[in-house]
Amino acid sequence: MLGSATLAARLARFAVSTPQENLQCPARAIVHLSMIDFIAVARAGVDEPVARITREMVLADEGREDASLFGSEVRVPARAAALANGAAGHALDYDDTHFAYVGHPSTVIMPVTLALAQTTGAKASALYDAALIGLEGASRVGAWLGRAHYQLGFHSTASAGSFGAAMSASRLLGLNEAQTTHAISLVASRASGLKSQFGTMGKPYHAGMAASNGIEVALLAKAGFISRSSALDGEQGFAETHAGEYNDAAFEGMGETFIFEDVQHKFHACCHGLHACLEALGRIIADGGAVPDQIEMMSVSTNSRFMRVCNIASPTTGLEAKFSFRLAMALAVLGYDTAALDTYTDEICSVPSVVGLRDMVVVNVDDTLAETESVVTVRDKSGVQKTVRYDLNDLLPLAEKQARIAAKSASLIGDAAAQHLWDNVMAEQTLPIL
Amino acid sequence: MLGSATLAARLARFAVSTPQENLQCPARAIVHLSMIDFIAVARAGVDEPVARITREMVLADEGREDASLFGSEVRVPARAAALANGAAGHALDYDDTHFAYVGHPSTVIMPVTLALAQTTGAKASALYDAALIGLEGASRVGAWLGRAHYQLGFHSTASAGSFGAAMSASRLLGLNEAQTTHAISLVASRASGLKSQFGTMGKPYHAGMAASNGIEVALLAKAGFISRSSALDGEQGFAETHAGEYNDAAFEGMGETFIFEDVQHKFHACCHGLHACLEALGRIIADGGAVPDQIEMMSVSTNSRFMRVCNIASPTTGLEAKFSFRLAMALAVLGYDTAALDTYTDEICSVPSVVGLRDMVVVNVDDTLAETESVVTVRDKSGVQKTVRYDLNDLLPLAEKQARIAAKSASLIGDAAAQHLWDNVMAEQTLPIL
Repeated sequence: MLGSATLAARLARFAVSTPQENLQCPARAIVHLSMIDFIAVARAGVDEPVARITREMVLADEGREDASLFGSEVRVPARAAALANGAAGHALDYDDTHFAYVGHPSTVIMPVTLALAQTTGAKASALYDAALIGLEGASRVGAWLGRAHYQLGFHSTASAGSFGAAMSASRLLGLNEAQTTHAISLVASRASGLKSQFGTMGKPYHAGMAASNGIEVALLAKAGFISRSSALDGEQGFAETHAGEYNDAAFEGMGETFIFEDVQHKFHACCHGLHACLEALGRIIADGGAVPDQIEMMSVSTNSRFMRVCNIASPTTGLEAKFSFRLAMALAVLGYDTAALDTYTDEICSVPSVVGLRDMVVVNVDDTLAETESVVTVRDKSGVQKTVRYDLNDLLPLAEKQARIAAKSASLIGDAAAQHLWDNVMAEQTLPIL
Repeated sequence: MLGSATLAARLARFAVSTPQENLQCPARAIVHLSMIDFIAVARAGVDEPVARITREMVLADEGREDASLFGSEVRVPARAAALANGAAGHALDYDDTHFAYVGHPSTVIMPVTLALAQTTGAKASALYDAALIGLEGASRVGAWLGRAHYQLGFHSTASAGSFGAAMSASRLLGLNEAQTTHAISLVASRASGLKSQFGTMGKPYHAGMAASNGIEVALLAKAGFISRSSALDGEQGFAETHAGEYNDAAFEGMGETFIFEDVQHKFHACCHGLHACLEALGRIIADGGAVPDQIEMMSVSTNSRFMRVCNIASPTTGLEAKFSFRLAMALAVLGYDTAALDTYTDEICSVPSVVGLRDMVVVNVDDTLAETESVVTVRDKSGVQKTVRYDLNDLLPLAEKQARIAAKSASLIGDAAAQHLWDNVMAEQTLPIL
């Protein structure tokens, strides 16, 4: 048992179950000496700038009611709000994605801007300025770190996101360039997050970590904190220690052009692997090419990597439904709202009309297709066949994107709240309400 | 200028100095959509367990006056106290070191135990139990990660320290094994810190980060947070992503024997590279072999790596004095307290008796010596010569260690405070006062 336990489980057993008598050992005498030594040294160091700045930062945070939380009326310090709101924003994994770094920028940056705009009393326009700075910064730093960083196991959303968060926070807190350099350099020591947490609560928590990191380092830098300016690209810096690719081209045109513009929004409340398929099918449906009782056959072709991800042939639960090409296509054809969270239920999996269409779907592997592509074909009983290829990298026109975001937010929070949110954001006159 | 600027400086310029009009661009329309999307998705996700647990953790912290800070009468939440107190404890770089992982264990673990013992009302004995658990955990995890981890650029004090901090915190908060496993696994996503910050405030701040990390993950795990148990030793886990050596031998006998016992305390308020030299010289002085006006020559042999670290031949400032074999040896022979912070002044560098002895010192390179070793020779005018070799890995007997910690703390905080601290810790009856 112990042999097969994970290291974390073995350490936990040691921490929790080591009997008190085993801790009465010669090492305990050394613990006493180390406690005395620690306290004496810390007291002697209490006026050192790093000790003073860090202490004053936590004291200044103490009891502040600055920033709003999703899901509570109580306000908390900005760092705390950013931690919780980042986790809330990524909890459903339904937020936006930038494929330049396979990261989720908004769930890290927006909590920083919302919390600090409330804290500082910033105008809405300053909030959106800082948001664009941070979103752009996260995307470009993520692209600079490159795929090697992500492939080794780092969660770019949180690692690259921390740098963007520091940039947004520095702008909203009014730091100068030297202070901002210290904030960005310091966050190299805080930027973290592992893909091995995917499938656990760790993943959304990472977004909150990054948001909170950005605020913390900006507060410290504003108070005079000094860090190493080469901590990103220098010797033993973040790129060297975190498998960064040093893709300097990622910074071309920074300040003039904005790669954040290519961010992708999710329009279906299911696995991202199903999205290109649903988009292709949606176009056939819109053309009148997929009338439920006239369909004879449907097929989807996709990259083989999705066969292990979202190709459950006959799902029986709501969760499984989110990972099934066949079921999702049946739902779409029947007019269910694939953007709504509550479409994916246990019950829907056994509705006869859904099961009937589901069983008409053939899933094909085609490794000439990119991971962002799907090809969908629908053939009706008269032999008419329509085929559409869709690539998630094909950006939607702004008007279509706007319409779909409006529809998505209405399906998530209701028509009235969605309209209110829309009007507020588009006007840039007051800060958004969480 | 821009070409030679660090990446952090370039990002800072973009963040601070991009004019507002450049931010009125097509990407701003996408920022609006992403803000709407973020808020709608976060509101919809607010009852997800990860969102609820994280929110409730920060709400529970709000305004608490649980834990003491060095240097303030105000109490703050435990996470906040640990952040500041870890930084204070490492600000002077005068705290203990464990060479199994080249890490500073106490400045990470003691703040966790002190803050949580106050928060939970734990008995002093429980504080020392949890301290030993965390100190041992940090040391063993550090040894498991190995030198490769440190050599690549990770600051083991903070990285390995975060795991020990999670273990200490879990024990004091009364988590069960399953919850503690989640805490330890989750901290794999938080454990960070780069050696490239050495020489800046970043280094001591790392100790506070690690302490705070440990408390945060334990609070979350106690409330039901789920993480990936294989996040240390599994696929894309901490060891794989952070150049860990997987030295499983590091865990032999865990729970029965305690490698923390080998921790080393610093007894001189100068560069660690001078310590073996000062210890060897101290033994000659104690034997009466180094009487100032009878000395003809002194020499020290040491590993070549220290030539670039602490071999300033003729220092002129207090800071330089801390990095000078020659000056430190002169101070020791003349009876100055090399443990006291205020011994190392600009003035001392030009005192004639100090300069006279300093100029009798010859510094030799000997790469057959380990980095922890020095060989010191003193020859007097009658031709009598004494040579002592000292290795920092030679552990002092407990009684000598106790006497020297008592003397060090008295020189740092005064006799009365040091005596009070000593009595308090040794009695294990009440929590130490910061």
